[in-house]
Amino acid sequence: MITLASDFGSPYPAAMRGVVRRTSDAELVDVSHDLPRGDPRAAAFWLRFVLPEFPPAVHCAVVDPGVGTDRAAIVVRAGEHAIVAPDNGLAFPPARALAAATGTGPNDIDVFEIHEADPASTTFHGRDVFAPAAARVRENAWTDGTIDGDRLTALGSLTATDDRVDLRFPEPLVERDPDGTIDTIDGEVLVVDGFGNAITNVPGNVITNVLGNAVGDAGHDRVRVNDAGPVPLVATFAAVPPGDRLVTVGSHGFLECDVNDGRGAEAFDLDAGDPVRLSFE
Amino acid sequence: MITLASDFGSPYPAAMRGVVRRTSDAELVDVSHDLPRGDPRAAAFWLRFVLPEFPPAVHCAVVDPGVGTDRAAIVVRAGEHAIVAPDNGLAFPPARALAAATGTGPNDIDVFEIHEADPASTTFHGRDVFAPAAARVRENAWTDGTIDGDRLTALGSLTATDDRVDLRFPEPLVERDPDGTIDTIDGEVLVVDGFGNAITNVPGNVITNVLGNAVGDAGHDRVRVNDAGPVPLVATFAAVPPGDRLVTVGSHGFLECDVNDGRGAEAFDLDAGDPVRLSFE
Amino acid sequence: MITLASDFGSPYPAAMRGVVRRTSDAELVDVSHDLPRGDPRAAAFWLRFVLPEFPPAVHCAVVDPGVGTDRAAIVVRAGEHAIVAPDNGLAFPPARALAAATGTGPNDIDVFEIHEADPASTTFHGRDVFAPAAARVRENAWTDGTIDGDRLTALGSLTATDDRVDLRFPEPLVERDPDGTIDTIDGEVLVVDGFGNAITNVPGNVITNVLGNAVGDAGHDRVRVNDAGPVPLVATFAAVPPGDRLVTVGSHGFLECDVNDGRGAEAFDLDAGDPVRLSFE
Repeated sequence: MITLASDFGSPYPAAMRGVVRRTSDAELVDVSHDLPRGDPRAAAFWLRFVLPEFPPAVHCAVVDPGVGTDRAAIVVRAGEHAIVAPDNGLAFPPARALAAATGTGPNDIDVFEIHEADPASTTFHGRDVFAPAAARVRENAWTDGTIDGDRLTALGSLTATDDRVDLRFPEPLVERDPDGTIDTIDGEVLVVDGFGNAITNVPGNVITNVLGNAVGDAGHDRVRVNDAGPVPLVATFAAVPPGDRLVTVGSHGFLECDVNDGRGAEAFDLDAGDPVRLSFE
Repeated sequence: MITLASDFGSPYPAAMRGVVRRTSDAELVDVSHDLPRGDPRAAAFWLRFVLPEFPPAVHCAVVDPGVGTDRAAIVVRAGEHAIVAPDNGLAFPPARALAAATGTGPNDIDVFEIHEADPASTTFHGRDVFAPAAARVRENAWTDGTIDGDRLTALGSLTATDDRVDLRFPEPLVERDPDGTIDTIDGEVLVVDGFGNAITNVPGNVITNVLGNAVGDAGHDRVRVNDAGPVPLVATFAAVPPGDRLVTVGSHGFLECDVNDGRGAEAFDLDAGDPVRLSFE
Repeated sequence: MITLASDFGSPYPAAMRGVVRRTSDAELVDVSHDLPRGDPRAAAFWLRFVLPEFPPAVHCAVVDPGVGTDRAAIVVRAGEHAIVAPDNGLAFPPARALAAATGTGPNDIDVFEIHEADPASTTFHGRDVFAPAAARVRENAWTDGTIDGDRLTALGSLTATDDRVDLRFPEPLVERDPDGTIDTIDGEVLVVDGFGNAITNVPGNVITNVLGNAVGDAGHDRVRVNDAGPVPLVATFAAVPPGDRLVTVGSHGFLECDVNDGRGAEAFDLDAGDPVRLSFE
């Protein structure tokens, strides 16, 4: 299987599908072609979220504001998967998640630089560099349903490298009361999804004890987001009336600021990259 | 084949594709992930329209404003097809159409409740409940190219149920003149499509005698929509100049209020759910 | 393989997928369903761009403002490919490109009219005419991985025809200085892509000598677009700071007026169809 992800919208991804199909019969699955445009960090958030749902595959992921410059193109072997991507950090958050999902730990990663001689364009390496490389990896370095590190290492168009751009998401700062319960968390909005949910970098397990069966046990069932009035900390959207604000743990495993049947980002005045202070009551 | 339909936009459906592929090699076909958001009735209109075009398949359909509440998750066997969906009515209009298309009548339907222990999230059951259930149905209750009712009944994670939320579209009220021709029809806009066509609940066969070869035979070739001036009742968009309003029978089999190369919903001031009175001239 | 392209958005293309799958097991690949709406010329630009990336296939392409009128439906054999489309010119720019890519020259094209008795609708021939015809061509006129002209000619539902609507893009007018360098080019914007890039009809090879290694050799590295101030003529977006305007040769092989990380069409005040005068400095 080769998955395709980009910020290309339409119809550019069709050129990538065609190019792959010229040299590979592998199943093609679109992840998304509406990843946040020109934003490798936000795109990496989404790839880290969805790629681990897949069985071992070659993932071709292109969000590439540096196309046509001297940024490298890379293949990252991550556990039983491979990611083909520009060397701008995009590949590493999902690679660590894929390696962890494989069971070999988040550091079971090798990186190779792609040598693509003379691409036909300077503006569309999705077609001219990444799609052909993904097909080549799939056809020449795939054995028994997983990526084959030895065959990958032997591919003439690749060379192992340690020199690449990493990307890591910021960690939130958690302040606790003397009794151990949470007082405030200083985090950041990582992405706003298509529903308008403002998804933060605060892992859900930080507050799990105040949700679900345990709500109230920790003395917290409401939270302030920045300077706004307190809103319920609940288990799902429908726990509040339509139009009401809430904070919950989303399917990504992170705290998000939402509105039931509405757009949390607007209601809380939050954009991707904004700081967010959560004050628990 | 497993078809996927939702109101999730992008990139959430990719997680569903990955989850299915972990346990099933069945072909994946996207129906749409831009179904009317949070609106099971309008989504059911579209599923009733498109699913009967498919050969027998397992259809995973998720428009689920009640996610995380105690609404059930169900599998509906409909003729030779199966629909996996939340129990909010979404499945039944397409299920009746699929059963009818199978030739066994619109009531050839069985309903099963899905028991999914402890889904990973309370906000994304497309990934955590419906996609795994669709893969399970496809892998364990599919025989010779159709759903297998006996094997479905035997699936441990399902129990037959009669207790489910149904959903039916309103019927229009037709008033006729003494000579049998139509005077007025009181209907409703069911959906507005991406072209801006306002599609009503008035079946085309009600007025077929005033269209096509029969136009004029019934004495009607113009119609008023609510209080607007009369517009032509024609066989297709291009029968009027670009920018002009028209009423026609659309490909769904229902009367729709359109503008050639324009947006009928705006021109006629109609939204989904609005009443619409058609007065024939 | 059957590719699908249209301006139908969502969910209409799902009906085409279902219809094909009822009679053909061929792989289905979506090209795009967001082609410029109701604009066969702009849609033809995109199809000419992407279809030649594919291996031999049956391409079902529907941008059809004349649906329901007496415009014909056609199959175009182009080299080893076939295009099924309305007879409004849409098929010919990509057909010439496919024939050229096959290596048999841009005129290796045969045209057949489709006879589809009594389509179910007058508004959705994607479902009722073109998808069934594409499946029929694929199932009955495909041999050893390419279209089979003899079997196509023998198909009962097709008749060869020379009477069809052609479509050609305008040629730019190039004025040169006495020393042979370019003074001005009068061209036209053919399409604006999803990034806001305004793509012209000026082939990149006209100015290749002023780009890349040769920049400066020809004495030109800046260009005025209509009455705007001069902007750099560069090899890729990232050659200028974010927000700055540029002119480059895009991946389609044509000159385009862009903004790095912005929308060139707005910055240069250009729409599809607008004339564009390029004055070289």
